[in-house]
Amino acid sequence: MKLLRTALTRVRTAYSCSTKSILKQSHRKLFIWSCGAVSVGVAGVSIICYHSNSNTVLANSGRKLDLSKWMAEPITDKTLLEERSSEMKYKMEAMVMRIQSEVCRKLEEIDGNQKFFVDRWTRAEGGGGITCVMKDGLVFEKAGVNISVVHGNLPPPAVAQMKARGRALEGKTLPFFATGVSCVIHPRNPYVPAIHFNYRYFEVVDEKGKVHWWFGGGTDLTPNYLFEKDAVHFHKTLKDACDKHNKTFYPKFKKWCDEYFYLPHRGETRGIGGIFFDDLDNEPQSDMYEFVQTCADAVLPSYIPIVEKHKNDGYSHRERRWQLLRRGRYVEFNLIYDRGTKFGLQTPGARYESILMSLPNTANWEYRHEPAPNSTEEKMIKVLKQPRDWV
Amino acid sequence: MKLLRTALTRVRTAYSCSTKSILKQSHRKLFIWSCGAVSVGVAGVSIICYHSNSNTVLANSGRKLDLSKWMAEPITDKTLLEERSSEMKYKMEAMVMRIQSEVCRKLEEIDGNQKFFVDRWTRAEGGGGITCVMKDGLVFEKAGVNISVVHGNLPPPAVAQMKARGRALEGKTLPFFATGVSCVIHPRNPYVPAIHFNYRYFEVVDEKGKVHWWFGGGTDLTPNYLFEKDAVHFHKTLKDACDKHNKTFYPKFKKWCDEYFYLPHRGETRGIGGIFFDDLDNEPQSDMYEFVQTCADAVLPSYIPIVEKHKNDGYSHRERRWQLLRRGRYVEFNLIYDRGTKFGLQTPGARYESILMSLPNTANWEYRHEPAPNSTEEKMIKVLKQPRDWV
Repeated sequence: MKLLRTALTRVRTAYSCSTKSILKQSHRKLFIWSCGAVSVGVAGVSIICYHSNSNTVLANSGRKLDLSKWMAEPITDKTLLEERSSEMKYKMEAMVMRIQSEVCRKLEEIDGNQKFFVDRWTRAEGGGGITCVMKDGLVFEKAGVNISVVHGNLPPPAVAQMKARGRALEGKTLPFFATGVSCVIHPRNPYVPAIHFNYRYFEVVDEKGKVHWWFGGGTDLTPNYLFEKDAVHFHKTLKDACDKHNKTFYPKFKKWCDEYFYLPHRGETRGIGGIFFDDLDNEPQSDMYEFVQTCADAVLPSYIPIVEKHKNDGYSHRERRWQLLRRGRYVEFNLIYDRGTKFGLQTPGARYESILMSLPNTANWEYRHEPAPNSTEEKMIKVLKQPRDWV
Repeated sequence: MKLLRTALTRVRTAYSCSTKSILKQSHRKLFIWSCGAVSVGVAGVSIICYHSNSNTVLANSGRKLDLSKWMAEPITDKTLLEERSSEMKYKMEAMVMRIQSEVCRKLEEIDGNQKFFVDRWTRAEGGGGITCVMKDGLVFEKAGVNISVVHGNLPPPAVAQMKARGRALEGKTLPFFATGVSCVIHPRNPYVPAIHFNYRYFEVVDEKGKVHWWFGGGTDLTPNYLFEKDAVHFHKTLKDACDKHNKTFYPKFKKWCDEYFYLPHRGETRGIGGIFFDDLDNEPQSDMYEFVQTCADAVLPSYIPIVEKHKNDGYSHRERRWQLLRRGRYVEFNLIYDRGTKFGLQTPGARYESILMSLPNTANWEYRHEPAPNSTEEKMIKVLKQPRDWV
């Protein structure tokens, strides 16, 4: 209980993302979640079950929340979020809301021209979300930051799928809860990379009333052109975040990321990777929470300096054409291979607009386009075909 | 044998697609095939096995082929194609070549500005194909006409999949042969619909040496704006083709088409349908061949008059924007649901460039775009949400 309260009384300050201050921000904790689509576990991960009896949690464990900066009214009633803030799911929701607003405000500040369109929605089956979309910005051609807080009953095929992936779940239709934040940013300038991050928490209650929980998430970068210093900065920031918790995490999750964001038909990764993990449940919940929080905390510091560095770079039709072709690959990955998109669209009552928010506003395909030998475009492709270690 | 020879001595004339002459062309026979990806059967279709012993087919049953109009050298040696033209697989290949060239020449003639880029490729595992792509035409923004002639061994998962879908195949790794033509046309003018067609033939030899064969295919139209007369003309042309063989075919295959080209997450069909069928094997092979030939024969007459009618229609940014959003839906269908694309990309050694040739050169996505009430865009959407009977 003490640990949970400590987590909740952490100082919230506005993000400061100048290159200098980035690595000094370890005192700040961000907590970011996945969403839109509900992700459903990966095979071969050991499972630890966590039994919670929500009704016995102290009703007055919470503290006042400052809703004034959030993008919209939260999905769960504010009083409930405050009163039961020591329960992971409510704590998460509050975090998700805060993170969404911090990312959106930062992007609005950098863009200087466009604001986010805020779309709060509810789900007939239980819960809802807040989808924030910016389009046609000066810096950001399209950016989407989505949070969702969904609950209800997992249909039998979803339960079966989780079992097939190694989850020791008993029962056919099981109550679940999922919350998270997901974000995809497609900048206008071809020299500014796209970024995706997604941090999420999942609970399933089995027939015996046992609560199975796990965390998932990741952050990955998709540049059109390779700037080695940027790649090092990005990976170093993520590595530092991982290292605070467990030195084995970064190498493991970096590899997982390269393997996950891979287009087998092209033999290319989607971008230069980052970190990716799922089914994180083999340490105490509070430790996993701390880890995820630190990772999410590293998102803006890993990315914003790169945006600032390249947002005004000059470019021509050649770079724009290449960017649009690379976006075509991005669409291919998301629609063909991405588990979140695939399972998300299969979920009854899924809000496809929030799931497909990750797609760029415009993407191109050309038959057999090949970069010229020794060009900067070819240099990029070589790294996608043979992922490198950056730190 | 007589029937086969008769089929081969049919008159070949150049397509004449004025509206007047279209429905009088029943004397001409086209034979179109699928490809790029190898399609693998549908559940619940009864199976008739056909035993062929290729070696006993008369070597001199063929006749001289006129290769001068084909887009490239055929995949199979010309002499073999001529000498064994009574065998279905060689007959098919010759037809596929002829159809590809007829469609390409017709599109080039209408476009008046661009020619097809012809890309002949071979496949390490056996066979190859000829991919013809036109881009940046005056009338056709992108058009692809692909033929393929592939053979080798079906890997165990593909065999298992066929069994799961109702094919009584014995054995794990089985020799197969597939040939077909597939085509997708994305016109520039938003008032001209996109079209897709695909006609194909498949053979699998089981462990006992039994040849299982079947036909598949279809033609479907994807307009951005609804012109009811065009929809009637398109469907009527396909219905007439089907009716020549079996009056039950059109209603059955029209329904199958509406069901197949459907995006469940949006609750919309891809376009206004047409015909779609697979696993056609329950009539004598020569009859099935005649049917497929007639369907393929109806492609250009069903489409070209619509192109001619709208290719010079005036349009503004509004219609272009709508067209690009509709193309986004096209990409969604092809990458998420299309069986040919999905299985094609999973096939070892698949040529992804030919499979993804179906994607438009440019496509857009907008968060929650909704057509204005009572607009022409809304009229189109209503038909996609509630398919109509056109004839």
